[in-house]
Amino acid sequence: MTPYNQTIALDAMGGDFGPEVVVPAAATALKELGGGVKFLLYGDERKIQAFLDKHSELKAIAEIRHTDQAIGNNEKLSAAIRRKDTSMRMAINAVKSGEAQSIVSAGNTGALMATAKMVLKCLPGINRPAIAGVFPSKQKDTVMLDLGANLACDAHILVQFAVLGAVCARIIKGQDNPSVGLLNIGSEDMKGPDQLREAAAILSNVDFPGRFRGFVEGHDITNGTVNVVVTDGFTGNVALKVAEGVGDLTGHFLKEAFMSSLFSRLSAVLGYGALKRLKKRVDPRFYNGGMFLGLNGICVKSHGGMDVYGFSQAILVAANLVEQGYNKRVAYEIEQLMGQESFFSGMAGQSEGFS
Amino acid sequence: MTPYNQTIALDAMGGDFGPEVVVPAAATALKELGGGVKFLLYGDERKIQAFLDKHSELKAIAEIRHTDQAIGNNEKLSAAIRRKDTSMRMAINAVKSGEAQSIVSAGNTGALMATAKMVLKCLPGINRPAIAGVFPSKQKDTVMLDLGANLACDAHILVQFAVLGAVCARIIKGQDNPSVGLLNIGSEDMKGPDQLREAAAILSNVDFPGRFRGFVEGHDITNGTVNVVVTDGFTGNVALKVAEGVGDLTGHFLKEAFMSSLFSRLSAVLGYGALKRLKKRVDPRFYNGGMFLGLNGICVKSHGGMDVYGFSQAILVAANLVEQGYNKRVAYEIEQLMGQESFFSGMAGQSEGFS
Repeated sequence: MTPYNQTIALDAMGGDFGPEVVVPAAATALKELGGGVKFLLYGDERKIQAFLDKHSELKAIAEIRHTDQAIGNNEKLSAAIRRKDTSMRMAINAVKSGEAQSIVSAGNTGALMATAKMVLKCLPGINRPAIAGVFPSKQKDTVMLDLGANLACDAHILVQFAVLGAVCARIIKGQDNPSVGLLNIGSEDMKGPDQLREAAAILSNVDFPGRFRGFVEGHDITNGTVNVVVTDGFTGNVALKVAEGVGDLTGHFLKEAFMSSLFSRLSAVLGYGALKRLKKRVDPRFYNGGMFLGLNGICVKSHGGMDVYGFSQAILVAANLVEQGYNKRVAYEIEQLMGQESFFSGMAGQSEGFS
Repeated sequence: MTPYNQTIALDAMGGDFGPEVVVPAAATALKELGGGVKFLLYGDERKIQAFLDKHSELKAIAEIRHTDQAIGNNEKLSAAIRRKDTSMRMAINAVKSGEAQSIVSAGNTGALMATAKMVLKCLPGINRPAIAGVFPSKQKDTVMLDLGANLACDAHILVQFAVLGAVCARIIKGQDNPSVGLLNIGSEDMKGPDQLREAAAILSNVDFPGRFRGFVEGHDITNGTVNVVVTDGFTGNVALKVAEGVGDLTGHFLKEAFMSSLFSRLSAVLGYGALKRLKKRVDPRFYNGGMFLGLNGICVKSHGGMDVYGFSQAILVAANLVEQGYNKRVAYEIEQLMGQESFFSGMAGQSEGFS
């Protein structure tokens, strides 16, 4: 029983299921955390109350903050962020005011990032927040960022992401001196776009809370070649969704293969334990919780379609980041980074790719 | 037995295994093609001859062109493309001179693309060649390009890729009116980098040999949402390698799961047929053959580590593109494209992403 002492704001209306998932997920997370935590539940009081009544332990330490406004999943971003009384916005405001230390939402990613950035602002020295996630690998889990917050990133922003990711790997995955790679299309030094080669030159020369291992490629994410993979938000988002797609396709083929004959169906019954173990190894619920790093407050995004267990994992990620003082450690490391001349020296880029 | 009438130049020294794989692969492809084809084998005569002697049918229609020079897999690109007497370069020259209609190599991708581009040049109207590949999906196979030839691409180049890919899907996959999507990080119109939104605007207005379906995301590649996915070479290469990595990881987990107990091992034996069917569905050998599209001559790249069956698939891809007159059809379609005002009108871009 870790002695937590924190308040978590939940956007109870976000995601495909709203309070039906969020409230029981909070109850599940509470059991795991063993107390010392308080929840603020933002959304439709009547709906939240109905679910809260079923969880007496949670009810004792949770408070409902009513609003009948919520952001639709297909709402236009520019309209969504202007609304001040949505469950998402109010939950983020709770972190801004200091009433809560973290906010978890399964709502629209774009709206959550834009609102969190607008309300919470970045940590000193950080130019852009990034979305980080955890990927399964053959070795240890891999932390990857940015998964979609920034379309394009210059070298200095990529270096900041390396710091955000390295501190995250230390805290979330207990890696003492995490190895960090920059995602590129070849591991040779001379390959890739200018900003990547410049970021590599900087990371090779600065002290930061990880070991820079140079360029890595797409397959290195799941090979576990490095503990942290750094990329821009466009590439990272494509990589994340390709990985989800291939996982999904494999499951589809696996099902087809084992359903194709009576004999193979029988073997699937006998191999139930093995197939279940496989499913557990690649279960997206275990990897749920996109961490919005670099903001002045902890913000975690749950996948919109997650069930109770999956959403509870996102809450635990937020609680862990708060408990271990993620932002304080990042602020310290960024200050150290900015104090180094080699962070600013950069490199004159010469391009050599395939073309 | 399709009546082929073509000559295929093979870089017999490329890849991890050289003539040991290339020569028997040519014999395998010949059986599949049923004759009407001739092979030019470029490389070390003595080594090639030893393998050729084992395949009498192939020997009758193959000619060895000796050179003791070959490009090393780790050779610097700039050095590699200057060498005029390598097996790769000489095989490409055979297409340039008209002696062969296609060239297949398992050698270094960068060197192959750079040399092919330098020697063969692009088709009229094409600014940049692209590497296209075929991905398995839940529905029909998906053609994707560019997989690594061009780091960044402007809107007009992406539109040309859409034409290259659509004609490819017609020929390779027999899709009459292939649907085409642009890879982005959201399917909404207003999302993504300027060049993507501009390419979308053009593709919505021009006539081209496919149906434009707007933006698609990473998971759509394996979902089979569209027949052709268009992207720049950086993103495409990352996507390809992430897909390979996740496939590899799943195989690793599957093995672990079925080896973890005596009981699950037994079920794996019983489920052998199903597991074999699964393996076949995701077997990279079936999808071997990176097509270098847009060049004045057909050039196909085999994965360096492919076995005989895998390399033979790359040969069949090349033979198919030649037999069905891929380049002639592309040249026609590009001319049609360039004749349309809407190809040049473009669009004034307004950026709205997450950030």
